Amino acid sequence: MKDVKIFLPESDIPTQWYNILPDLPAPPPPYRHPVTLEPMTPQDLMPVFPMEIIKQEVSMERWIDIPDEVLDIYRLWRPSPLYRAYKWEKALDTPAKIYYKWEGVSPAGSHKPNTAVAQAYYNKKEGQTRLATETGAGQWGSALALACRMFDMECKVYMVRVSYDQKPYRRILMETWGATCVPSPSPDTQVGRQTLEKYPDHPGSLGLAISEALEDAVTHDGTKYSLGSVVNHVLMHQTVIGLEAKKQMEMVGEYPDVLVACVGGGSNFGGLVLPFMKDKLDGTRPNLRVLATEPMACPSLTKGLYAFDWGDTAKMGPVAKMYTLGHDFAPARIHAGGLRYHGMAPIISVLYDQKLIEAAAYYQNAIFEAAVSFARAEGFVMAPETAHALRGVMEEALKCRESGESKVILFNASGHGHFDLAGYQAYLSGQLQDYAYPEEKVQEALQSLPKVK
Amino acid sequence: MKDVKIFLPESDIPTQWYNILPDLPAPPPPYRHPVTLEPMTPQDLMPVFPMEIIKQEVSMERWIDIPDEVLDIYRLWRPSPLYRAYKWEKALDTPAKIYYKWEGVSPAGSHKPNTAVAQAYYNKKEGQTRLATETGAGQWGSALALACRMFDMECKVYMVRVSYDQKPYRRILMETWGATCVPSPSPDTQVGRQTLEKYPDHPGSLGLAISEALEDAVTHDGTKYSLGSVVNHVLMHQTVIGLEAKKQMEMVGEYPDVLVACVGGGSNFGGLVLPFMKDKLDGTRPNLRVLATEPMACPSLTKGLYAFDWGDTAKMGPVAKMYTLGHDFAPARIHAGGLRYHGMAPIISVLYDQKLIEAAAYYQNAIFEAAVSFARAEGFVMAPETAHALRGVMEEALKCRESGESKVILFNASGHGHFDLAGYQAYLSGQLQDYAYPEEKVQEALQSLPKVK
Repeated sequence: MKDVKIFLPESDIPTQWYNILPDLPAPPPPYRHPVTLEPMTPQDLMPVFPMEIIKQEVSMERWIDIPDEVLDIYRLWRPSPLYRAYKWEKALDTPAKIYYKWEGVSPAGSHKPNTAVAQAYYNKKEGQTRLATETGAGQWGSALALACRMFDMECKVYMVRVSYDQKPYRRILMETWGATCVPSPSPDTQVGRQTLEKYPDHPGSLGLAISEALEDAVTHDGTKYSLGSVVNHVLMHQTVIGLEAKKQMEMVGEYPDVLVACVGGGSNFGGLVLPFMKDKLDGTRPNLRVLATEPMACPSLTKGLYAFDWGDTAKMGPVAKMYTLGHDFAPARIHAGGLRYHGMAPIISVLYDQKLIEAAAYYQNAIFEAAVSFARAEGFVMAPETAHALRGVMEEALKCRESGESKVILFNASGHGHFDLAGYQAYLSGQLQDYAYPEEKVQEALQSLPKVK
Repeated sequence: MKDVKIFLPESDIPTQWYNILPDLPAPPPPYRHPVTLEPMTPQDLMPVFPMEIIKQEVSMERWIDIPDEVLDIYRLWRPSPLYRAYKWEKALDTPAKIYYKWEGVSPAGSHKPNTAVAQAYYNKKEGQTRLATETGAGQWGSALALACRMFDMECKVYMVRVSYDQKPYRRILMETWGATCVPSPSPDTQVGRQTLEKYPDHPGSLGLAISEALEDAVTHDGTKYSLGSVVNHVLMHQTVIGLEAKKQMEMVGEYPDVLVACVGGGSNFGGLVLPFMKDKLDGTRPNLRVLATEPMACPSLTKGLYAFDWGDTAKMGPVAKMYTLGHDFAPARIHAGGLRYHGMAPIISVLYDQKLIEAAAYYQNAIFEAAVSFARAEGFVMAPETAHALRGVMEEALKCRESGESKVILFNASGHGHFDLAGYQAYLSGQLQDYAYPEEKVQEALQSLPKVK
């Protein structure tokens, strides 16, 4: 019997993160200042990020050492297992070989602590005592709550209100680790109060929650801001996923034909994909296919514009060139709260613009169909975000059934769905709504992009 | 750096279960018929259990082969990791070395699938198409739902009502795997209907839910009953935990001084402990200490009587000699729903009666205090049941701090608490009630024990 799980020893946890910036055909253009729209300097970022993170954000070093203090926390769950999904292959009746990297084994239940731990560490080292952040479905907020606890820091989380209401257990989880979590828009910030006055029932959005957390960071002593996705340093911290996965695939003598991961801001996608993308960029693996999967309700890659835009609704944070649906776009209340973001990581945007990766958008019922199919074969119940990857894999696997090809598919199982079961219930009871691609709303939101020269 | 996690390869999954019956000072006395109170024959058990399970229940073979089909499912999460809790040791400032076996990595989130998979397999093999069972906190119901799905069988779960209300996500999890779950008492059985007529607000109890599941099994074609704890074959299936843990402890060159596990019916306790108990019984490890931890609201070992009693409220199932609080005893609505059982596994009862193991009972606030302490050090959020083990470990570790002894403590981390966060919220907000030892109610319930000669 071949092994279902491929484990690495703790001594094989990567000791360096992979920074793809020097290997890209062209790096993403510099961030612009949110008000002047001029290129930003490191100094501009100092009110919100620690110096080490700012350096990493623009570093052109290919490999960056992971501090021992971070590795020490990683060891609580890393290296994460690589699984071969034999039973799902059988259920799908496909000749494809399906592998997945299982990040749900972390205490927070997703890949998010990979960067949360690093960010908490650098902030602590530079004298901060408190971090503020936003969270969508709660995966990121949980991860930062955990990371802050590990370094004995305070943590304040602004949670998108629709998720706060849908997922009370996520809040309790953060509180168990000692964090404070409020629904966004909240009365705790000026931008939150202004929004609540205008729209008392505002469902919240990641863009708005980011604005609140940014405001919190610049208005509280000893506090900085921590971002769970989108920016370069976050994707770099996440490359531990792909670096481990490469070793694990080597152990079974395989190299993926297709990589699949879901995209919201792009962090789990980047984490899995970038170390493999290195091989495509340097010509070693020219035929590697990479598929980013996103919700039809928030299709930033497949329907967005590649343009400069603010990362947050209140236009307080940097302006970045990225695929965007417009910073004013408020996506429908889908269960994959972590994918409700109007923009896309600048690195992923470059890759998509250069046609180095593909993208596909799915409706909610289609992704839960894939998730239930997976759960009934493999046991594990995945997060709705991860279910977008499952749908992509399912379609690739069914194509293999038709063509008879034994393609090797590797996907990132970015998190478990233990706090997202309301979505499963809605799907199983036939109550789950599919939201059409919101073309008009996107067109409207795209009117207010910044005029960057 | 020493490893935090000790993994075994899949080839080291035990291929035989350990049956302690031949090694006990004296095996538990035979079950008695629920009506005649005469010793039961295998034939008496045939309406509810498959033949292979009945044989295992009374087998005097020390080792019983695990079928390949069961091993094939075990491989989805087994061998489970053994952890060294370095960070909790530091937080407790103890010289004790704390190890834990982490069973929360299974798809159902606990140790329960170890026996669920075996039981589903034997039932399927003998022609059954459907299983009925009860569940307390939902760990067992989830496990059987998963196992039935793996063997393409139907599954009906009667869930103790207080837990059904507290933990809706557990029900959705079972439904995701295709099972049907109803609150017990339910209108689906005669005993349920009778109870609801008398007490429409009955909170349910494991004893009552067992009665419903037993009735379901004997009144439906192709259906048998599956039990998640208490009986000999369940404890035997769970010995994969302890057998793996022994190998893992050997890998780090340690042997435990103290074992700790929580007890409800006794399955996770037996699973960890019995393979080590073998060494104590044969004189190899005479000084091994073993601690069973239970809720003050349902203290069957510390306050129960060692006597024959029915395993279920409606007196439909076998009568067993065990520590019991009386089959009519309805425990308070504590969050550790899996420990709300009036009796104790006959095997564990023999060990306790023979003073081969110790026991301690704790209040809810004390166990959640330990669980939050653990979560803030190690990250993982444990089930309230498991938190009883954590409390026991904490007290042992603090004793070591006083005495300066570096004892090796190994406990069973039987399951995660992702579906139990309401209990954490109650604790963190100071709303959690401690229930005094219900002496009067127990005395009353103990009046109705069967008169077995």
